[in-house]
Amino acid sequence: MRIKIINPNTTASFTERCLVAGRTVAAPGTVILAGHPSSGSPSVECYVDEAVATLGVVEQVRAGEADGVDGYVIACFGDTGLEAAREVAAGPVVGMTEAALYAAALIAPVFSIVTLPPRTKVFAERVLWHAGLERRCPRVRAIDVTVLDCEDEASQVLEPFIAEARRAILEDHAEAIILGCAGLQPLVKPLSTTLGVPVIEGVAAAVKLVEALLALRLATSKRGAWGYPPQSATNPSGGGGG
Amino acid sequence: MRIKIINPNTTASFTERCLVAGRTVAAPGTVILAGHPSSGSPSVECYVDEAVATLGVVEQVRAGEADGVDGYVIACFGDTGLEAAREVAAGPVVGMTEAALYAAALIAPVFSIVTLPPRTKVFAERVLWHAGLERRCPRVRAIDVTVLDCEDEASQVLEPFIAEARRAILEDHAEAIILGCAGLQPLVKPLSTTLGVPVIEGVAAAVKLVEALLALRLATSKRGAWGYPPQSATNPSGGGGG
Amino acid sequence: MRIKIINPNTTASFTERCLVAGRTVAAPGTVILAGHPSSGSPSVECYVDEAVATLGVVEQVRAGEADGVDGYVIACFGDTGLEAAREVAAGPVVGMTEAALYAAALIAPVFSIVTLPPRTKVFAERVLWHAGLERRCPRVRAIDVTVLDCEDEASQVLEPFIAEARRAILEDHAEAIILGCAGLQPLVKPLSTTLGVPVIEGVAAAVKLVEALLALRLATSKRGAWGYPPQSATNPSGGGGG
Amino acid sequence: MRIKIINPNTTASFTERCLVAGRTVAAPGTVILAGHPSSGSPSVECYVDEAVATLGVVEQVRAGEADGVDGYVIACFGDTGLEAAREVAAGPVVGMTEAALYAAALIAPVFSIVTLPPRTKVFAERVLWHAGLERRCPRVRAIDVTVLDCEDEASQVLEPFIAEARRAILEDHAEAIILGCAGLQPLVKPLSTTLGVPVIEGVAAAVKLVEALLALRLATSKRGAWGYPPQSATNPSGGGGG
Amino acid sequence: MRIKIINPNTTASFTERCLVAGRTVAAPGTVILAGHPSSGSPSVECYVDEAVATLGVVEQVRAGEADGVDGYVIACFGDTGLEAAREVAAGPVVGMTEAALYAAALIAPVFSIVTLPPRTKVFAERVLWHAGLERRCPRVRAIDVTVLDCEDEASQVLEPFIAEARRAILEDHAEAIILGCAGLQPLVKPLSTTLGVPVIEGVAAAVKLVEALLALRLATSKRGAWGYPPQSATNPSGGGGG
Amino acid sequence: MRIKIINPNTTASFTERCLVAGRTVAAPGTVILAGHPSSGSPSVECYVDEAVATLGVVEQVRAGEADGVDGYVIACFGDTGLEAAREVAAGPVVGMTEAALYAAALIAPVFSIVTLPPRTKVFAERVLWHAGLERRCPRVRAIDVTVLDCEDEASQVLEPFIAEARRAILEDHAEAIILGCAGLQPLVKPLSTTLGVPVIEGVAAAVKLVEALLALRLATSKRGAWGYPPQSATNPSGGGGG
Repeated sequence: MRIKIINPNTTASFTERCLVAGRTVAAPGTVILAGHPSSGSPSVECYVDEAVATLGVVEQVRAGEADGVDGYVIACFGDTGLEAAREVAAGPVVGMTEAALYAAALIAPVFSIVTLPPRTKVFAERVLWHAGLERRCPRVRAIDVTVLDCEDEASQVLEPFIAEARRAILEDHAEAIILGCAGLQPLVKPLSTTLGVPVIEGVAAAVKLVEALLALRLATSKRGAWGYPPQSATNPSGGGGG
Repeated sequence: MRIKIINPNTTASFTERCLVAGRTVAAPGTVILAGHPSSGSPSVECYVDEAVATLGVVEQVRAGEADGVDGYVIACFGDTGLEAAREVAAGPVVGMTEAALYAAALIAPVFSIVTLPPRTKVFAERVLWHAGLERRCPRVRAIDVTVLDCEDEASQVLEPFIAEARRAILEDHAEAIILGCAGLQPLVKPLSTTLGVPVIEGVAAAVKLVEALLALRLATSKRGAWGYPPQSATNPSGGGGG
Repeated sequence: MRIKIINPNTTASFTERCLVAGRTVAAPGTVILAGHPSSGSPSVECYVDEAVATLGVVEQVRAGEADGVDGYVIACFGDTGLEAAREVAAGPVVGMTEAALYAAALIAPVFSIVTLPPRTKVFAERVLWHAGLERRCPRVRAIDVTVLDCEDEASQVLEPFIAEARRAILEDHAEAIILGCAGLQPLVKPLSTTLGVPVIEGVAAAVKLVEALLALRLATSKRGAWGYPPQSATNPSGGGGG
Repeated sequence: MRIKIINPNTTASFTERCLVAGRTVAAPGTVILAGHPSSGSPSVECYVDEAVATLGVVEQVRAGEADGVDGYVIACFGDTGLEAAREVAAGPVVGMTEAALYAAALIAPVFSIVTLPPRTKVFAERVLWHAGLERRCPRVRAIDVTVLDCEDEASQVLEPFIAEARRAILEDHAEAIILGCAGLQPLVKPLSTTLGVPVIEGVAAAVKLVEALLALRLATSKRGAWGYPPQSATNPSGGGGG
Repeated sequence: MRIKIINPNTTASFTERCLVAGRTVAAPGTVILAGHPSSGSPSVECYVDEAVATLGVVEQVRAGEADGVDGYVIACFGDTGLEAAREVAAGPVVGMTEAALYAAALIAPVFSIVTLPPRTKVFAERVLWHAGLERRCPRVRAIDVTVLDCEDEASQVLEPFIAEARRAILEDHAEAIILGCAGLQPLVKPLSTTLGVPVIEGVAAAVKLVEALLALRLATSKRGAWGYPPQSATNPSGGGGG
Repeated sequence: MRIKIINPNTTASFTERCLVAGRTVAAPGTVILAGHPSSGSPSVECYVDEAVATLGVVEQVRAGEADGVDGYVIACFGDTGLEAAREVAAGPVVGMTEAALYAAALIAPVFSIVTLPPRTKVFAERVLWHAGLERRCPRVRAIDVTVLDCEDEASQVLEPFIAEARRAILEDHAEAIILGCAGLQPLVKPLSTTLGVPVIEGVAAAVKLVEALLALRLATSKRGAWGYPPQSATNPSGGGGG
């Protein structure tokens, strides 16, 4: 099976790190690909960025469909363009945020997200509402660094992550922590060792969920709001499959 | 004061009808403008359409800012691109859906939305969640016509609207009805007469709410998630004001 | 159009300040009137006060109906007697609390209320529930002064308002602040300047919302729970219109 | 112990029937009294009625305090004036609606209310929200008769109650039914026999809950929103105890 | 009437103290019995304990049915085995947690639970959800002692209870406190005196609620999920009554 | 990796069918085992059954721990004993209900459960609440057959499943259907073909989620409510690992 990880922003180093994160956990026989938009925003930190990046995600899914990709992962916290991708793809599409949330829900009664920068908390909260886990994840927390500060993640963001995660454990009684940004797989081990609770990286989690859906022969229901786009100027070929 | 109504799709007849709806209710001294994207989708009926249309909305707001517009109305049910518009505009931005919901909440304890086509109900439900009125509007209803069927609204959609609104009154105990599509101002009078309850058109409502915010000297708070976009490839000039 | 601001308590200085607040924002052509009950409570700080004041509100609406008033504003935080007023009036009635909440929802993703005295928080919370904005306004805050301490508002309550609003910004991530008491229009400018976020005064907001509903030709739906009172000893003439 | 049942309306036959209902279930040693306002509304069917009746309830509680009453029951569905009564009384006050809801919650996972007339559903829904049982009581139902039609209850309202309760059992999966009007104790037996599920009358339930609180030496917490009214024109003596 | 208090754990001193708590508040004519499982766990501090204890509760109810018991109290915070007991018993069954919650809801707008040890908070939260009072009891708090530390309650747990309850009053604005463990009746008086708010012990409250249901001739609805167990290996005699 | 499917009831044919369902979807290299309690109930249809079956689940997990099992699946709709199993196991434990819910949430905006028999709906609703997906799965539906009627599933239950699922699609707008009983894998294909929407079987889904968690090196957080049981009579060896 072929799974494509789509980084909605144009920063190649994130794409590369997500590819490594996915390959590390993929089952034998799974081919992991990765891609990012040909143009767009170097990071997704506001709603304007998100609209631009969503079109890039759609472009990448359409390319994937032509390449025989079976399923997709959206590798940006906030699951940029997830529903648009679901419309265009024949197979399953999983966002890293929802994947991390469901993984957390299976291993801890209460958990927390630490994302960045603070203004992107609204994206995480939107997924949290859609996923239904607001009661189990009582607060989305953020550290005050930019996405691009994470390009060399270890040195710059480990300490603020530890500090905020400790507050989540103490104040919210979190029993697991979700890393709220793509490309932070290298932080999982040092963080979980330091904190003493499981730490969840969503890109890897999403790769496993796509594998699961494919093994179960489950794909996006095309009956309603996630059906193929109707034909229009935006969607010149309309429909799916054909 | 100058208020610009932005039709997120590219169908000029909708833009024109929204302009008429706005001018009909505007206060003396308010100048109502209207615009639609230079390219995009003729209607917004899926998530891919929405992403394309959001960029068109941003384009129209940026043009408006250059033209000295004081506030904006998003004239598409589902409030396409509302948050992105709020980021880019200095002044207030109000979506037709949220405007209709708040107007309804002030005149009826329980109300209903009748939108179209069925797959766009998810957009209305997203606004309903954001506006917090799920308890007061227990069901979003839809009629099975396309947006473009409404171009000549009176003949094609009046009867299905009446039928579905009657079900809302009977089954949901709705005491007011929200028209879930832009450009339907001509339906307000025949519908409210036939149904015997208030019928609310969101574009007109949004024009009045923008006027209200301007009179109150209130604009989008720039402190957090609706602040000006940070500078990036997507947002070449970054920041605001300048 | 004629809009009457009803102060539910008997303290004339509040009525006067609300009249000023309304006239400051009214559109040309709107006549703003104000009134308070002929007898009752000098402030509304408990449920017994509220019941007394509600009868005063009904008295004032009935007088307004006789005077050709088109719409009403309830000028007490907690929206004292709002539903009873809606039953009696033919035209729209808007409470200062709900008006402030909807205005806040249009300009900030998260906001907070600072009311007074603490025991009246339950009134604000009741409106918050009815308006549906509990998720967007995560905490109703209060300062420990009485309503009558606000008669000379600037000197006594500015400092505690600043302190509590700063906690709302820091702890609740509020991006706008609602003034939780009538008569505090003079605080809006110094507070918003000091805090750096929009500050919303509900009486002025409610005046603009009544103007909006009147321009939209929308009035309270008489189909259900806000219909004219049935005839009885309490409602000697019953019905509406008269 | 002395428990006073307060009928918020002025119809003496209701007061009498509530007195009978209370005495039937009272423990040996409990003295049951009953009273209604000296003036007011013959029934509580709208918000204006409710404000008038609340003052009558306060009057009756003040009289009860002078008479050495230990606790009170509010005998009107919707719990008219409950919070105002709690402010004025030193001992516990229980509404018939909340009492019926908690009794139902102890004997059935899902239950329903059948109240009357339809416009009073909002009062029941307000108590349901306050009591927190919206999920367990998914719908408040109403029959289209007036309160005064229940003066001679058996002949006029039994059949519509049976019909609506059967719909609650079939459509809402209700496993118990709450009678949504005071004075209907005589319907309990025929209804429960016919329906095959428990039927709950709130006045009797409230009498038992007041007895329970008194035995537990629990009274309204005076620390916050249900404390004694502050001294004012409305509350000439202010404070409590004295 | 005969009411049996069932202590789900095997520690006889708790059973004895619950018996005293129940007898102290019982009405004249009520016979209070008490029992605990013949084998099981000395305390219920985890889900495995709970499953074992539930079978013990069922054993004790079956014995009670043979002994002519009319109603039952589950005397463990978290209401261990409550639904299973309801299935087996013909008469009403009330848990100490739900009883305390409903008593609190009748006397305070906001209240808090202080339970022990911390990992059992999930049991209290489950009851809170079922009872619907999450909004009124915004936080379940815990002190870090074990259940068996309460065997000699006065000396060991009074101080931590006072400290945590004070935090509940200060931070959650609690106006009443629920004791979150069986057997703590002796703490009620010193705690309420020290804290200045009502303190509620659930076993006593549950005894009074069972008395109330019996006086009202209300028993568990057998129509649905709390009906008698169907016949099976687990339920050799199946059905009820017999 | 070794994954054990635990059937909480004692009916061997269900265990066998679950084993087949699991092996069909397992990745190469995954060893699927299955077991059921040595004694207990032939099906789990009430709370008493559930308590008995939970102890059987704990027995089977303890045996699995001794056998070097890495993760577990609970193969009963309602996720019988899930939390107790999580306490006892070192590795991850996933219930078939939560697995089906999360799979459904990834492929459809709205979905429905069809379970059996009707009185077990409360178990599904409890998982739905815990999983947070009540909004996305607006109604749990049931067909009126017993679990054991499904032993020869194809002939007896296919038709009622089709009928109820069609109502879910029509009335609840479900875009995917969850099979609410273990052992129904053979129904997936005929149902999805007939209904035209994805049909989800939870045992297979849970096997894939356990595989995912193991690949991600995630196990139950032992910090709080799902930590190893404290040592006691119920848990003679206490703690974990050992």
